[in-house]
Amino acid sequence: MSTPRSGGRRADAVRNRQLALEAATALLSEPGAALTVEAIAGRAGLGAGTVVRAFGGKDALLDAAVSDLLEPVVRRARELCGHPEPDLALRTFLAELIAFQSAHHPLNDRLGGLDLPATTARRAELVAAVEEMLDRAQAAGLVRTDLEAPALTTLIGQTAYAVARSRPAAPELVDAYLTVLMDGLRPPR
Amino acid sequence: MSTPRSGGRRADAVRNRQLALEAATALLSEPGAALTVEAIAGRAGLGAGTVVRAFGGKDALLDAAVSDLLEPVVRRARELCGHPEPDLALRTFLAELIAFQSAHHPLNDRLGGLDLPATTARRAELVAAVEEMLDRAQAAGLVRTDLEAPALTTLIGQTAYAVARSRPAAPELVDAYLTVLMDGLRPPR
Repeated sequence: MSTPRSGGRRADAVRNRQLALEAATALLSEPGAALTVEAIAGRAGLGAGTVVRAFGGKDALLDAAVSDLLEPVVRRARELCGHPEPDLALRTFLAELIAFQSAHHPLNDRLGGLDLPATTARRAELVAAVEEMLDRAQAAGLVRTDLEAPALTTLIGQTAYAVARSRPAAPELVDAYLTVLMDGLRPPR
Repeated sequence: MSTPRSGGRRADAVRNRQLALEAATALLSEPGAALTVEAIAGRAGLGAGTVVRAFGGKDALLDAAVSDLLEPVVRRARELCGHPEPDLALRTFLAELIAFQSAHHPLNDRLGGLDLPATTARRAELVAAVEEMLDRAQAAGLVRTDLEAPALTTLIGQTAYAVARSRPAAPELVDAYLTVLMDGLRPPR
């Protein structure tokens, strides 16, 4: 009897984990939604105890949800690292990143003070990919080399996020930002 | 008897107002300091009731303190509007604004939801002065005219604030930001 029972329990655990993850991901995209275990469990149609057992706690659950959310962004950044026009690749990536951050606007505000190792690792991957895009653009003579790549990467990350956060993130503002930034990144005249 | 007594009361009221204002201004510059009436009164050596009577409430007190804080920034922006090199004036002003915002980093985070009419008016004056600097730089052929001045002003405001907020607001980052921004604002090649 024990094999089918534990198999069923395992299947239940996998299903509950998936339901909780989907609920957390949905809540992360809703401005102002509470990110409590109770809210996540309620959305998933599970008990709070079940959610805690499936992930070991709220931090681990949010870490899984946020790092899943960032996964396609990292993949896209890496894909664009192979683009034949590295400056165009950078602009394309930043436009997509701003759209993503704008859609998940309150995300960062609600993750302060949590222990999110997988999310931290994904963010580091994202920064590394942007640095690679910049390196390639510098090597191709398309981006200035009189400023250090790490300063440029930090600068781009901070300012892009500010533009994404602005309400409303008007398309004219995003476009003006990308135009001024990309022209400012060109090698000085 | 009544004239000297009410004169003494008036002098007390003026003094208490000043003490409360100075205490609020000091607390505004301290990261993490609580901005409650009790904290302000405690710092000023006054009772909470005295502070409320002097200003009519916390919002009015903070409004007076923040708008006082912004007053020299607005004055400086207007002064720089008359500078013979409007692009240099803009860069100079932004460097000073970032230093100011960096020193008063948590200010905006702690003012959300308050009714601050004098502060709102000061901010509008600041935006108008930056728009005038940009207009002058555009008229002199030093800043691009293919992007609308209001979009540029918003863009500059948002991104400068993001750089000022970054911890640490490393001098290299501020310098990289100003260099990339000012080059990006030049008329396109």
